[in-house]
Amino acid sequence: TELMEDNNNSRERYLWNVLREMLTYVAFLITVCILTYGMVSTNMYYYTKVMSQLFLDTPISPGEAATFRSLSTMEDFWKFTEGPFLNGMYWEVWYNNNSLPENHTLIFYENLLLGVPRLRQVKVRNESCSVHEDLRDQVRDCYDAYSRANEDTAPFGPGNGTAWTYVTEAGANGSSHWGRVSKYGGGGYYQDLSRTREESAVRLRFLKDRLWLDRGTRAVFLDFAVYNGNINLFCIVRLLVEFPATGGVVTSWQFQTVRLIRYVSSWDYFVGLCEVIFCLFILYYVVEEVLEIRIHRLHYFRNLWNCLDVLIVTLSVAAIIMNITRTATVSHLLKTLLENHTTHPTFEPLANLQLQFNNVVAVIVFFSWVKLFKFINFNKTMSQLTGTMSRCAKDLVGFAIMFFIIFLAYAQLAYLLFGTQVDDFSTFQASIFTQFRIILGDFEFSEIEEANPVLGPVYFTTFVFFIFFILMNMFLAIINDTYSEVKADMSQQRCDMEMSDLIKKGCNK
Amino acid sequence: TELMEDNNNSRERYLWNVLREMLTYVAFLITVCILTYGMVSTNMYYYTKVMSQLFLDTPISPGEAATFRSLSTMEDFWKFTEGPFLNGMYWEVWYNNNSLPENHTLIFYENLLLGVPRLRQVKVRNESCSVHEDLRDQVRDCYDAYSRANEDTAPFGPGNGTAWTYVTEAGANGSSHWGRVSKYGGGGYYQDLSRTREESAVRLRFLKDRLWLDRGTRAVFLDFAVYNGNINLFCIVRLLVEFPATGGVVTSWQFQTVRLIRYVSSWDYFVGLCEVIFCLFILYYVVEEVLEIRIHRLHYFRNLWNCLDVLIVTLSVAAIIMNITRTATVSHLLKTLLENHTTHPTFEPLANLQLQFNNVVAVIVFFSWVKLFKFINFNKTMSQLTGTMSRCAKDLVGFAIMFFIIFLAYAQLAYLLFGTQVDDFSTFQASIFTQFRIILGDFEFSEIEEANPVLGPVYFTTFVFFIFFILMNMFLAIINDTYSEVKADMSQQRCDMEMSDLIKKGCNK
Amino acid sequence: TELMEDNNNSRERYLWNVLREMLTYVAFLITVCILTYGMVSTNMYYYTKVMSQLFLDTPISPGEAATFRSLSTMEDFWKFTEGPFLNGMYWEVWYNNNSLPENHTLIFYENLLLGVPRLRQVKVRNESCSVHEDLRDQVRDCYDAYSRANEDTAPFGPGNGTAWTYVTEAGANGSSHWGRVSKYGGGGYYQDLSRTREESAVRLRFLKDRLWLDRGTRAVFLDFAVYNGNINLFCIVRLLVEFPATGGVVTSWQFQTVRLIRYVSSWDYFVGLCEVIFCLFILYYVVEEVLEIRIHRLHYFRNLWNCLDVLIVTLSVAAIIMNITRTATVSHLLKTLLENHTTHPTFEPLANLQLQFNNVVAVIVFFSWVKLFKFINFNKTMSQLTGTMSRCAKDLVGFAIMFFIIFLAYAQLAYLLFGTQVDDFSTFQASIFTQFRIILGDFEFSEIEEANPVLGPVYFTTFVFFIFFILMNMFLAIINDTYSEVKADMSQQRCDMEMSDLIKKGCNK
Amino acid sequence: TELMEDNNNSRERYLWNVLREMLTYVAFLITVCILTYGMVSTNMYYYTKVMSQLFLDTPISPGEAATFRSLSTMEDFWKFTEGPFLNGMYWEVWYNNNSLPENHTLIFYENLLLGVPRLRQVKVRNESCSVHEDLRDQVRDCYDAYSRANEDTAPFGPGNGTAWTYVTEAGANGSSHWGRVSKYGGGGYYQDLSRTREESAVRLRFLKDRLWLDRGTRAVFLDFAVYNGNINLFCIVRLLVEFPATGGVVTSWQFQTVRLIRYVSSWDYFVGLCEVIFCLFILYYVVEEVLEIRIHRLHYFRNLWNCLDVLIVTLSVAAIIMNITRTATVSHLLKTLLENHTTHPTFEPLANLQLQFNNVVAVIVFFSWVKLFKFINFNKTMSQLTGTMSRCAKDLVGFAIMFFIIFLAYAQLAYLLFGTQVDDFSTFQASIFTQFRIILGDFEFSEIEEANPVLGPVYFTTFVFFIFFILMNMFLAIINDTYSEVKADMSQQRCDMEMSDLIKKGCNK
Ligand SMILES: [Ca+2]
Repeated sequence: TELMEDNNNSRERYLWNVLREMLTYVAFLITVCILTYGMVSTNMYYYTKVMSQLFLDTPISPGEAATFRSLSTMEDFWKFTEGPFLNGMYWEVWYNNNSLPENHTLIFYENLLLGVPRLRQVKVRNESCSVHEDLRDQVRDCYDAYSRANEDTAPFGPGNGTAWTYVTEAGANGSSHWGRVSKYGGGGYYQDLSRTREESAVRLRFLKDRLWLDRGTRAVFLDFAVYNGNINLFCIVRLLVEFPATGGVVTSWQFQTVRLIRYVSSWDYFVGLCEVIFCLFILYYVVEEVLEIRIHRLHYFRNLWNCLDVLIVTLSVAAIIMNITRTATVSHLLKTLLENHTTHPTFEPLANLQLQFNNVVAVIVFFSWVKLFKFINFNKTMSQLTGTMSRCAKDLVGFAIMFFIIFLAYAQLAYLLFGTQVDDFSTFQASIFTQFRIILGDFEFSEIEEANPVLGPVYFTTFVFFIFFILMNMFLAIINDTYSEVKADMSQQRCDMEMSDLIKKGCNK
Repeated sequence: TELMEDNNNSRERYLWNVLREMLTYVAFLITVCILTYGMVSTNMYYYTKVMSQLFLDTPISPGEAATFRSLSTMEDFWKFTEGPFLNGMYWEVWYNNNSLPENHTLIFYENLLLGVPRLRQVKVRNESCSVHEDLRDQVRDCYDAYSRANEDTAPFGPGNGTAWTYVTEAGANGSSHWGRVSKYGGGGYYQDLSRTREESAVRLRFLKDRLWLDRGTRAVFLDFAVYNGNINLFCIVRLLVEFPATGGVVTSWQFQTVRLIRYVSSWDYFVGLCEVIFCLFILYYVVEEVLEIRIHRLHYFRNLWNCLDVLIVTLSVAAIIMNITRTATVSHLLKTLLENHTTHPTFEPLANLQLQFNNVVAVIVFFSWVKLFKFINFNKTMSQLTGTMSRCAKDLVGFAIMFFIIFLAYAQLAYLLFGTQVDDFSTFQASIFTQFRIILGDFEFSEIEEANPVLGPVYFTTFVFFIFFILMNMFLAIINDTYSEVKADMSQQRCDMEMSDLIKKGCNK
Repeated sequence: TELMEDNNNSRERYLWNVLREMLTYVAFLITVCILTYGMVSTNMYYYTKVMSQLFLDTPISPGEAATFRSLSTMEDFWKFTEGPFLNGMYWEVWYNNNSLPENHTLIFYENLLLGVPRLRQVKVRNESCSVHEDLRDQVRDCYDAYSRANEDTAPFGPGNGTAWTYVTEAGANGSSHWGRVSKYGGGGYYQDLSRTREESAVRLRFLKDRLWLDRGTRAVFLDFAVYNGNINLFCIVRLLVEFPATGGVVTSWQFQTVRLIRYVSSWDYFVGLCEVIFCLFILYYVVEEVLEIRIHRLHYFRNLWNCLDVLIVTLSVAAIIMNITRTATVSHLLKTLLENHTTHPTFEPLANLQLQFNNVVAVIVFFSWVKLFKFINFNKTMSQLTGTMSRCAKDLVGFAIMFFIIFLAYAQLAYLLFGTQVDDFSTFQASIFTQFRIILGDFEFSEIEEANPVLGPVYFTTFVFFIFFILMNMFLAIINDTYSEVKADMSQQRCDMEMSDLIKKGCNK
Repeated sequence: TELMEDNNNSRERYLWNVLREMLTYVAFLITVCILTYGMVSTNMYYYTKVMSQLFLDTPISPGEAATFRSLSTMEDFWKFTEGPFLNGMYWEVWYNNNSLPENHTLIFYENLLLGVPRLRQVKVRNESCSVHEDLRDQVRDCYDAYSRANEDTAPFGPGNGTAWTYVTEAGANGSSHWGRVSKYGGGGYYQDLSRTREESAVRLRFLKDRLWLDRGTRAVFLDFAVYNGNINLFCIVRLLVEFPATGGVVTSWQFQTVRLIRYVSSWDYFVGLCEVIFCLFILYYVVEEVLEIRIHRLHYFRNLWNCLDVLIVTLSVAAIIMNITRTATVSHLLKTLLENHTTHPTFEPLANLQLQFNNVVAVIVFFSWVKLFKFINFNKTMSQLTGTMSRCAKDLVGFAIMFFIIFLAYAQLAYLLFGTQVDDFSTFQASIFTQFRIILGDFEFSEIEEANPVLGPVYFTTFVFFIFFILMNMFLAIINDTYSEVKADMSQQRCDMEMSDLIKKGCNK
């Protein structure tokens, strides 16, 4: 974009060009905003919420306070699957105990269960780790933390069926998944449940009686997908129960609410139209940027605004490709599912693709807004402010480096001192964010003090003193000083013709 | 107001005028304050609190933790109505199981139930939305989210009585209401309960057995009103149970504690006197402002203080009109109610009017205080400070625009990234306020991280860095720089006669 | 104190005087600190905690979650008195169900119940308020909120005994008390319990069966006192259950842990010695200040340091008098109690006196520390900083006034808008502190939004913007600017002989 | 390190030296980081978490909400030991009620209980304190708070076995321990449990029936250790139940997760290699610093960087010694344990040593990062910032002293005013940290207000006003002013050859 070619004797024409470019850009921005707001709706949040409440917040047995969120033993796991999991999945009666009018059960009377749910576990081999020789008498078995190399692929228990023999990632249509403790492969031992409650209960009972979970079990996935026709949304649910090598249970979950089927209502078609316009805009910008790159070569990338343009265009092209892929895959998958209701549909990769798409679009919108600043600079007050920012950028970056060295040194200190005791410092990454939260004022001092009664308070006091009192004020000193300078410079500059003058002139004609 | 006519050779007379105007104004301010504090009392908060505790915090059945706040299924709804709702409404025995001495039941032994409670539901038509053709075999019914256009008006179930045939907004004396999920119309299917507990329980049982709530139900309103003679307050209660198209339940509530009957105690009569004085003041100011407007025409509105005057006067006139309307309506409504105790009284529009009145008065008081600054400027130290504020106003507004573009870009990013998972970001508006709360240090980092383990921390880190470290310091730099300038300017000015000099002179005489 | 008489040609002698005065002062400060730390111990907190846990956190009946903190009906009140109250008061068996070896019961096996507990209620008369004429048919009784004028003094129920006939404040040895809702008088209807559990349960049962609490009841006080011999501490407990005119229940409590008996252990005697030294110091300072006042007359009070001196001395004299009074009263009261174990001892006024004494001492210590600054100014770096503070004081005060006008205008707005719904804004005073908390980042935005979905967010946004972004930065601008000035001034001053030079010189000799 | 010898005519050679030194240092830093990350793993946090959940969060009996965290009476203590403590320790069946295949029980099926658990109590003598003479009739026994001098060493109850006769610290292999209330000695009366559940239950029952806990009991320790072979970690658990002299119960706990056995997996051997390299580095630095000290004598310590060097080296030598000691002790202890499974192993001193070692290493890493600043100063932008810091250091320290005098005066005031009621102010130290938290915005205003309805709000308001509004801005004023000065100075300096020039030159060759 030819913004920076300052052409002194034809400033007016230059400004007209900028104005045209700006109006085009605003049109683009509006298109992008409509498009993204067409993608989301508050229904999505409510859908996620009611589904997660149903499975995560129901007590695992009446009179107990424990829920899926707070499972702590293998026994609790079975209580959960036989209790809230089955109850939540199969709604067979109305609230007055009449049975539901239709044959297929509807979760909350509204949500269709697609195919059948699946339980899948991954295991590690015995003797996958080595025990110190002094203790080998005592500790005869050793099941390491999960890793692909340690994965157990031998049949066990009855040894028949997918529940007791290993199925590969391809065979199970699975994909790898990041849990809280490890990253798990997509293979394992799986058991599909049935379309009826009784049949499912029998299958679970059998797994439990034959000790399906044993010391080698490292994680169990509970996967299913529901569809709500009222609002045309899918919810792809994955409940993950990890059994770390330490013993005990760590639970996590994913409720991916996505609109996989597009173009049903008339609003959808309007959004579709915007998508077409968006593609045309992108085509226009691609051509424009390519032309400019051919003219300026590498000099082109010296201007940060140009880099931003390239970034937006690249991401947009990626988003368009993802959207097309998604649409194709969905129709294929739905057809397979409709032919056979008793299989487990693998919506998960699709939901992941859709979420990646959403993320890419969100980032595009963000940078599109940031690009507005390119035009805002044409107002004098504004340029005084952005001038301050860009002039102090070097000092700020220099200082930010110093700041982060100390900040990271503190984070590492905290991680080593409190990591084994306090959740907020249990990883190095968590330490960093916890320190940001301390600055903002959201933290638990008592936990720090409990974890280390001497160094905890020392850490806290010096951290607050150096970071909060001293270093943060340096940011201010830098900005403050630069602002004074810029303001002094500005007041000595001669006045160029401004955008506002141009508009006034235009109005007067 | 003639404040700005700077008259150099008669500054003393000018100051005398200002002093007179100021004293008048202080009298006005005192009147307004007495008047507003006559409107409210801490009893109101306690009343709201005990009533809401009774209905919101009582477990829906003994041994269960769920309350009205955490209803999650239709079954829970019926448990609530048959349990805490009926128990809270009809108190028939003392704590030692003696029956109450009087015929009519009193909530908490103190509060009279006015008329009877009412249950009202709104429904949507089946096939109010379209299902994608691939899934039509599976999803035969489709009940859209609520909108007026989709509303079901056909009779259902037994088909007789207001509970099973549609009654229009006018017929039900209803009005539209904003719930959490949608805005609902005032019509629907309603069932009034009875003055006795047994009779009410029978009616509820009948509704439940005949499946009053079905898949089309989108919201149920539970309305009733109580009156406490001890403190002369009404509490108009509305419990709203929404059944969104996603399934599940979303509850909300309104406990509007209002003083609808005025002028009972002697304190009330004193407040009434203040109201008369207030009206006189307003009359005086109306005349004054009208005169000035006739003199200065549009120039009058160039001065912000004048705009403030007009605003206060306009709001005051509106408040007076609302007050008169309210008084008239209440006496009419009470008469109707006293003639027939077994109807449901529609206090709700009246309560809304009263709340609007309260809001208007609150805003009047706020702006009345702000107007004090007009007089404070006559002190030199003060004018130095307000001078700083007004001089940096242009830069601050310019910067605020830049700040909010970035702020809103972040809000939109957060809404798109976390909106489907995190309550705090579930709408665009909520995102904005959540970001303010992040700046102040009240938020949940863990939810952000859980919703998006990669972009969540990136969003948080860059947000804190740009907004908290960099941009907020710009505000300071602007103010700081301007203050230095203003102070330097001030020290060079010649000294006008000040208000304090005038007062000294007056004392010496 | 002759600090300010700047004597140019004998600065050295002057400095020597200051040094002497300073050393004396440090000795005084040390004495005060020992004395106050002799007064408190962490045992006190644990004592308060275990006693309050016992009565406040025990469920009112097994399987219910409600505790004393969350009582909501009169029925709950009786459950509490017959359950956790009696159980907590009378410990008659060991954990293995052996009965306790001694005759008198010990709370937690360690704490002696002094005398017997007392229940006291205050009531208001029927028809203490007027009902609007339209509603008189419906609302026949009217019990106003509590005030001395409305208090009911007629006998009721059986009409015999202190439980059913009114006893005056003097007769009940009571004193007035601020509850959450009102301030209550010290008289009323009271029932003393017994030294045994069974007898007490019978008395409570009788009260409950004969409807001791009725619609006129506005508050019930449960008073008792325990003594722990191990750590020589009294805990004076008052549980207050208010029944506001709105219906429902509001509970509050007081656990005053005080050391009424002094001088038991050897540490106590050491503290006693310090008290004597403290008295001598005070005598010395009284004499000194009186002399100076005689010399300087009213000029003396122009110096803020002198005012501080007078304040400290006055408070100290008050504290000494309170201490003597306390000691005399305790021994008298204990003697009465030991003669008759079955009366209710009135420790409450004594505990209040002791708490007032503690408060006064705490304030003395605080101001004693502040006085240190008088001496710190003799260091040059320090005086540069205090110079900044004192020079910008006028501007800061001016600005603080402006700040608080806007701050209070906001507080009043919030009180009127949210007062009936949100606890944090339920009084004007609470609004003010809540706004401080918003600035510091501790508040509940969701409650504000719920109470007023339109004006709530507007209030919050403008408040954060004006107060947090704009006004708070003004403080900084003022301080920043003044500091630069002071530093510039300082660097031009000639160097006086400093305290550090004097010390060096002293060392060299 | 010869960094500061500024050699003007051979700056290039000097820079080469610095560069060499810097690269060596970076190698050292990398070694240290690998070494510390080899020490910790996220497994440790999960291990701590699952073990603490098992014992701390399980209800003490079904249907009760109380857990170990909220024990409040001696009866609760016995419920805990006979319930969650025994259940958590001895896992004898799988989730389907099959008994476990192996003979020895495994906590969570994964963790080996090492030896047997031990209960140990410490008691105080009767009449260890004196009661005021007026009350001696009433209070016949007096058990003081715990101190070594008051400790009871007499046999009691049946008088046989370690449970009823005193065992010294040496006899019990114990060590002193800081609880919440006091510091306890390592001796006392102890009872080892058994390897089976039934036998252990019998022993606990006996203790309970014979009143093992009585009024003299001040603390009970529950000690045991588990080993997880999968991840090669020990967890040394201590549950401490204190019975303060006030009555009631205060619980605390220690879950020390440590890697006592090193060098099992191949990763361990790589870390071992790094440890050797680390030792070599330390040897190199020791030699270097010793040489420099011999040359410069005491002048050496005038440079802060040199002091830092000495500190790092000293701590490193200490760490190496601790590591060697630890390794030796572990193998000895394990051998003893393996010979006799039915004794209680005393892992606690070892775990403490390991934790001290971890702390020392954490501090070494922190200071190693800080030392990086020595090299960062060679960049001009950076030196401008560190210049600001070092130049304003004197003023900052001066102001920090003033700040802390006021801060501590407030802390003492708060301690005296609220200490007996509010946990956050229950000790002077806690007051200090609570005030830091108020500044950051994390506190409970309602508790302060409840504890002292008059002085509480006064304290809060003035504290926020002085500390938050005024004093914290002084820090900024100091830094801001100095930054302007430094920047002005810098712009006048001539340009030395910089590190970046050197690198450019090196590249060009
Ligand atoms: Ca906060």
